[in-house]
Parts: sequence; C-alpha cells; structure tokens
Amino acid sequence: MDWNTLLASRGARMKASEIRELLKLLDQPDIISFAGGIPDPTLFPAQAFAETFASVMAGPLANSALQYSVSEGYLPLREWLAARMAALGVPCGAENILITSGSQQALDYLGKLLLSPGDTAMVGWPTYLGALGAFNAYEPRYERLDPLDNRPAGELVDAAAPGAVKFAYLTPDFANPTGETLPLAQRHALLDRAEAMGIAVIEDSAYQALRYDGEAVPPILALDVARSGGIENTRTIYCGSFSKTLAPGLRVGWVCAAKPVIQRLVLMKQAADLHSATLNQIVTHQVAEKLFDRHVAGLHATYSARRDALLAALAREMPEGVSWTRPEGGMFIWLTLPEAMDGAALLARAIATEKVAFVPGGAFFADGSNRNTLRLSFSCASPSQIDEGMARLGRVMRSRLEK
Amino acid sequence: MDWNTLLASRGARMKASEIRELLKLLDQPDIISFAGGIPDPTLFPAQAFAETFASVMAGPLANSALQYSVSEGYLPLREWLAARMAALGVPCGAENILITSGSQQALDYLGKLLLSPGDTAMVGWPTYLGALGAFNAYEPRYERLDPLDNRPAGELVDAAAPGAVKFAYLTPDFANPTGETLPLAQRHALLDRAEAMGIAVIEDSAYQALRYDGEAVPPILALDVARSGGIENTRTIYCGSFSKTLAPGLRVGWVCAAKPVIQRLVLMKQAADLHSATLNQIVTHQVAEKLFDRHVAGLHATYSARRDALLAALAREMPEGVSWTRPEGGMFIWLTLPEAMDGAALLARAIATEKVAFVPGGAFFADGSNRNTLRLSFSCASPSQIDEGMARLGRVMRSRLEK
Repeated sequence: MDWNTLLASRGARMKASEIRELLKLLDQPDIISFAGGIPDPTLFPAQAFAETFASVMAGPLANSALQYSVSEGYLPLREWLAARMAALGVPCGAENILITSGSQQALDYLGKLLLSPGDTAMVGWPTYLGALGAFNAYEPRYERLDPLDNRPAGELVDAAAPGAVKFAYLTPDFANPTGETLPLAQRHALLDRAEAMGIAVIEDSAYQALRYDGEAVPPILALDVARSGGIENTRTIYCGSFSKTLAPGLRVGWVCAAKPVIQRLVLMKQAADLHSATLNQIVTHQVAEKLFDRHVAGLHATYSARRDALLAALAREMPEGVSWTRPEGGMFIWLTLPEAMDGAALLARAIATEKVAFVPGGAFFADGSNRNTLRLSFSCASPSQIDEGMARLGRVMRSRLEK
Repeated sequence: MDWNTLLASRGARMKASEIRELLKLLDQPDIISFAGGIPDPTLFPAQAFAETFASVMAGPLANSALQYSVSEGYLPLREWLAARMAALGVPCGAENILITSGSQQALDYLGKLLLSPGDTAMVGWPTYLGALGAFNAYEPRYERLDPLDNRPAGELVDAAAPGAVKFAYLTPDFANPTGETLPLAQRHALLDRAEAMGIAVIEDSAYQALRYDGEAVPPILALDVARSGGIENTRTIYCGSFSKTLAPGLRVGWVCAAKPVIQRLVLMKQAADLHSATLNQIVTHQVAEKLFDRHVAGLHATYSARRDALLAALAREMPEGVSWTRPEGGMFIWLTLPEAMDGAALLARAIATEKVAFVPGGAFFADGSNRNTLRLSFSCASPSQIDEGMARLGRVMRSRLEK
C-alpha cells in the first residue's frame, strides 16, 4: 500500500460534524439561528479577563505563565476545583483533578483509555454529538443507555460479548441536545446497573452550573462517593468545563475522578499535548476565584428569560403534533415532530424559505434514527428574535403539514 | 471483567516520561541542571505578549477571542505561517496549515491517523522521547531510521510485513537529543527511500529557526515540493512550533502538508478538542508579526554563546573516551561515554555527589539500548554555571573511570 492509498484508507475513521459544517453556512446576517450550541459572547466576563491577563503578565507569574508546565494542570486551579467539587458533595483533593483543554478533550482521552475497536459504549438516545465524534475515533459499537431500561444487566453484556461494554456516557443535567435532567432515582438506578455490569460511568457536566429553577440533583459522582465510601472507590468520571460559565475560547476544562483514573489520564495528556496552556489556567483560576458565582447568577437571569421566551413562543407558534421539553437549565429545547416530518429536510426548507435555522435531531442518535426531531438553542437569541424565529419556524412546519 | 480490572489493564499502554519525572526532582536550588529541554523563560518576549494581550482584550476581537472558533485555526495566523513556509521553499496556502496545541499534539494526531497496533514507525536511534510517547499510545513497532542505511527498501518492508511501515519520523535540524542536522544529500536519500517504500515522512521542525551558524539546509518538505511538483503531491508532513521561538506556555504549533492530510487532521482535532485556544492564536499571530525575526536573532546571540561555553567546557573537563556532537543550532549536545559507563547510573551518582544533572541517553532509544550516552541542554545555563557544571560532571566521570 503506498502513501496515497494509505491516506485515503484513513478517511473512513472520521466524518465531519454535521453541526460544525452547518454553522459555516449561517454567517448570513438575516438568518435567525437557533443552531449553535454556544454561549452568548456578549455575556463573557471580558473586562475581568482583560484585567487579569494584564495583571498576570505584569506580575511575578509572567514568565512561568509563558513556560511549559506540568501535565496535571496548574495547582491553584486544581485546588479551587477540588473545593468546588467538595461543595457539590464530592470531597476530594487536587490529586483527583486533571486540567484538560475543554471537556471535549476529556471525552477523547476517556475513549482512548477505555475503548478498543469493537468495544461497546452505552450512550443516550439521543446524546451529545461531540461525544460520538470523540468516541468514534476508537471504533466502538453503541448500545442505548436508558437507566430504567428493564433488561437485566447480563442481557446487555451478552448482547455485546462478555466484557465488551466499557462505560455509560451521559450528560445528566440539562443535556445537549434534549435539555432534560436525569432524576435522582434514575441516577441511582444507573449506578446500580453500572455496578452490576462492572463498567465506568462518564458524567459530562458541561451545563451543570446553569440551573435556572427547580431543585438541584446531586452529581452522579457525589452519589457514587456516598454509596462507595469515598472518591477512591468510585467508578464515575466527572468531566467539567468553564466553556459555558466563563468562556470557551481559553479551552479550560477538568476531570474529577479516583486517583488511578487521573494518573492514567495525566500520562495520556503528557504524551498527547504535554499540558493545557499555562497562562489560560492561571487566568481562569484568578477570574473564577474573583467572580464565578456572581457571574453565573447573571447568566441565569439572561438565559432563563430566553428559555421562557422560547417556551412561550413554541406554545404560540407550533402546530398540533409537535411536542417539546421544558428544561430547568442549560441552553437547549428538544422538539419531537410528527412522525413523517424529517428534521433535515425541514432545515433545508427553513433556511431557504424563512431564513431560520436549527439542528436536525437525527445526528444526535448513534444510529441516525429519530429523524423527526430537532434541537433549538436559546443561548444567543434575544426575546424578539425568538418570537420572530418561532413564527417563521411555525410557518415552515405548517406548510409541510399541509402537503 | 469489572471496572477496576479494566482500569488496571489499561496501565500498560502508558508509562511516565522519565524526563518529566526526573524534572520534578530538580527543584533543589543548588543543583546545576542540564536536563530540561526547555527555553530560557527570561528570554520570552513577555513585554510584547503583555501589550498584545491587553490590546486584543481591549479591542474589537475581545469577545471572539474568548469564543469557540474553527478547528482549522485562526485564519490570519494560518496565512502568516503559509507565507513563512513559502519563504522556506514551501509555496502553500492557509488551507495547507492546521493550528495545533504545540507540535506535540501534531505527533499524537499523526500517530492516531496513521498507526494501528503492530504497524511500524521508523524513528531515529536515538529520537525525541516525546515522539515515542505520542506514538506508543497507538502500539506500533519501531524500526531504526538511518537515511543512508544500505538495506534495500523491500527488505525493511518484508521485515515488518507488507504495508506495515507507515512513516519515517525525524527532527532533521538540531535534533533532540543529539543536536545534529541531517545533511542535504541524506534528506534526498530519505525521500528516495520513503518513495520506494510508499510511506509518509514526518518532519519535526521544533528547533529549525534556531540555527546559530553554518548554512541552512532546506526543509525536507521543501525538497519534496521541488521533486514532486507542488505541495499537493508531497508525502512529507511538517510539524512546527512557537514553543522554542516565542513561548511554549501558550501551546501554539502547526502542521503544514497537502490538503488531504490537513483535512483529516482537522476532523481529528474537531473530535478531540474542538480547537486550540482562540485568544492564544490571535495573540501569537500579532506578536509573531511584530517581532518574530528580531526576537529570534536575539535568541541566537544568547543560545550560541551558551553552546560555545559548553563546547569549551567539555573540551576542558571531559576525560578521555568521551565524545560529543558540535551542533550548529538548537539546545542540545549529545555525549557518548566509554562503553561500560551507564548514563542512568552516572546521573544517580552525579546528583548525589556533585549536584549536577542531565538526561541519560537510553530513554531516547526505542529499545532502550546505547545506555552509555547522555543529553546536555545548554538553553537555561549561564556560562559560569556551564563551567562549574562541567567541572562537576568531569569529576563524577573520572571517579567512575578510576573504579
């Protein structure tokens, strides 16, 4: 096999993310987009970041902020995160924290650590598209994760060949794409099942801090700690991120888990990119220490108003036969359309005729099923854009239904 | 297999980098260390970085600098790099450049793209330890890369099973660890061989800009472009980095290659960490545009004086039977000791009795052979530390030889 043949053969391992390819088409200013699952950039604490970059670069840390640093991450940031995790019911130390370049990198490393080709990953149906992207590189099969699934654990293991199921992955709070939160009883059921199957649980907490109402449910890792008597006995790997609370462009996330997991991930990170950017970790630590809770409270006020506007507009504009989730936080509402209505076809028509955009739901299913679904993000739209956008979407849907 | 058994079974894929573990022991201030292969932090253009962070964060790019961005990297930086590559004899466009989080990340992605377990990578004997670390995750075998090796290509392919050799990896300029540069004729010989074998060439150019004297040799990618009629026909993948010229802590590197390679790596990066930190790319671009050549000229003056001091001290202090390289650039000098002298044992004794440190050479060989070697880095030592350090090292060696 020569080089060009080899290279061509490697394309099959990867395919472009539909969402990111789609985003490239949305630069036209007259499109109202509910597609991008990104935070509103006008809400970033840019002034605090500017001041902190300036003070770090003018202070005694300047040279070390520009230098190589340890793969584990900046110790004061890891200590700050350990204290946050303790407040969430996960008593732990800095040695239980690894800093990653966003939680996306944690998903990649966990796939690399745990999956061999043909292994099985249990994921939500639907699930976060970026998780499928990260795991796909390691060529797993997928089984449907439903914590209340009444199949006995053994049946699942058998279906996948003994030992082939390696982990269950989920976003328990305000999931991307559904906006839904896993109730406490189902979190316990999931841990029961993971224990019976001898597998890990990957808890993606990207949106956890963005709860606007309702009662907080403890992280799965906190429940695991309480059941198993301490973080060192847990099987849950918690992936956190500053991307939705402070800013995604600095690429700072973290993993919280038992030390043997962290130690392996540290070696993996050392081999893969040495460490996350030193300066970004120092600045993130100082900004978080200064204003994290206050800033997140401000996000709650703005994002919850947008969610409310979207829920009200949906009630007003959606034709009969369309249903949707009512999330208590996060950035997303998930729509289920009449069976025969294809989300991708609807998108093509919505962009062409009404200049309104969203993400078709099929991409979020490991098998591409459930194409009569779509995801709306309310994070970047003003209430008036939301009203106008849903009026447009309603018109597109009704024109499809009338055919 | 349960979760703990599974986790335990995954340790074998990774082992800690000897160098990084060693570095942790060198915090004692009275040790003179020639171990760390890192740039001198007092030489970073910290003032220019401080000003640029401040102006970007105060300007119209502030919000987008903190936001998600495209996986390919910041377009103005990619354009600046394409122009630099053209000046090095590689006419290309931004579409031939991917921004990575340091060139280490490029090595990880190339391993992920090209290696399956049992495949063969050809590497220098010795080679960059971090490349072995990155590739090891994909479980390759290693063959010795020697461009003038007179075995016919077919013999190598047969030894490794047909098609099993995937690429040759090397640092042609001022290599880590030897400091040596591959002459022009051998670069051509390497391309001849890669062509005959149908494999890729990974050109790690981390130190290329740090030439202090002698005549520059064109990058292998430039030779490949000239032979094959344009970058789109090349088999060479060039990995660059700002870590040794501007600052490593921001984690900005790049890959330059034919578009099909870049496109696959972009998808891989999208799945693995979405993109490198947006702000860091913007700031690196502006600082590079402002002062790259001038700043690198200053590094040449300082580092070449340190290299000269180390060469002079070696001539003065080394016992008979020790030989060393005379690099025209970079940060490293490589010592070959008398056959019976073990670099690792020498290090243990050097730290204990004379408080002087270096990196034993065995770690740089894929098979751990050639233990009678060591690497000295002159990047962070003053001429007086160099004089004192080599006097100490000479004493330790002589005490070993007298036994």
